[in-house]
Amino acid sequence: MEPYVPKRRGLMLVLSSPSGAGKTTISRRLLERDSNLSMSVSVTTRPKRPGEVQGRDYHFIDLGRFEELRAKRELLESAKVFDHYYGTPRAPVEQALEAGKDVLFDIDWQGTQQLAATARADLVAVFVLPPSTAELERRLHTRAQDSAKVVAGRMARAADEMSHWREYDYIVINRDLDDSVAAVQAILIAERYRRDRQIGLHEFVKGLREGQ
Amino acid sequence: MEPYVPKRRGLMLVLSSPSGAGKTTISRRLLERDSNLSMSVSVTTRPKRPGEVQGRDYHFIDLGRFEELRAKRELLESAKVFDHYYGTPRAPVEQALEAGKDVLFDIDWQGTQQLAATARADLVAVFVLPPSTAELERRLHTRAQDSAKVVAGRMARAADEMSHWREYDYIVINRDLDDSVAAVQAILIAERYRRDRQIGLHEFVKGLREGQ
Repeated sequence: MEPYVPKRRGLMLVLSSPSGAGKTTISRRLLERDSNLSMSVSVTTRPKRPGEVQGRDYHFIDLGRFEELRAKRELLESAKVFDHYYGTPRAPVEQALEAGKDVLFDIDWQGTQQLAATARADLVAVFVLPPSTAELERRLHTRAQDSAKVVAGRMARAADEMSHWREYDYIVINRDLDDSVAAVQAILIAERYRRDRQIGLHEFVKGLREGQ
Repeated sequence: MEPYVPKRRGLMLVLSSPSGAGKTTISRRLLERDSNLSMSVSVTTRPKRPGEVQGRDYHFIDLGRFEELRAKRELLESAKVFDHYYGTPRAPVEQALEAGKDVLFDIDWQGTQQLAATARADLVAVFVLPPSTAELERRLHTRAQDSAKVVAGRMARAADEMSHWREYDYIVINRDLDDSVAAVQAILIAERYRRDRQIGLHEFVKGLREGQ
């Protein structure tokens, strides 16, 4: 019997949180540590900003192309933010999962709901919470000149995002960045060992039992 | 707002495997690494062997006491192996879980089914498989004087145990001991972050959203 090399379908790791909870830093650290994980690259109709790279930060496309992708159901999720559209192309994600690669999504509760509607079995949904309101306010008060009104608006959006915590599988309260990265990494590793994600176990156990 | 100290209910980590797959070594290593995890101590009616310690290896009890415990439903699971009875007392496990401590169970598929019948929500069930039949046979051939018939009997029992792999949440194929210990440890850590195991999240998020 050949040495068994476990095969598995990749998973979709979703990290959601209110802005200011540390999700972006956790995502970056995870990607640095885990070579089997890559970030999903979204399409967007907004203009490229200085320093952004086509195909790395986003696939920058025009509205006509966006509407075509959406009409053909080639987007796993999509959203309009202010005047621009964003979406996750289906094909590269499906290719990664089939190759046993995991894909990281930095999306909000609405994107997560859309992914869950079509791909619940592949989804591992993690919600990151700030440790306290004081800490959240501190992180949302990004510039000295931010007015109380601007910060209050950000807090309101954060409160709205946080109201969806129950829709997630795991909850990580980000008190310490290293601990939170370790927690999400443990979740990623553990989920890879779920029975349902491993391919060929039936034949493997059959071989073991029959003494092949 | 006080710094948030997450509270959680402990979990019951079950490791099952055919003998010879490495489960006992994995259990020992896990217990050494994780101070929040302790082994469930079973009751048994079999006599104490040299070197065994009452209350550490087993609670050695007589048949009358065993039947009393079982009649009062104070055993989470029980089994007869050869001429002796074994069982898991409910009270210490429940106390540990309520205190946020995790409990490790080294039991077979029948014990796991009994635990699942009364405590599925607290259960995290991991099945450890050997990497190949050759490796399993090698490990089951523990003494040079073992006859082919003795080894064949062990293989048959292993095959029976392995037929229940589908009843487990996670499957770990023990090709490399360090990797397998790391895998089970990641499963233990990840499961602690499951939404359902964390206590008081509703009030915590309410406080965050209302800016307390």
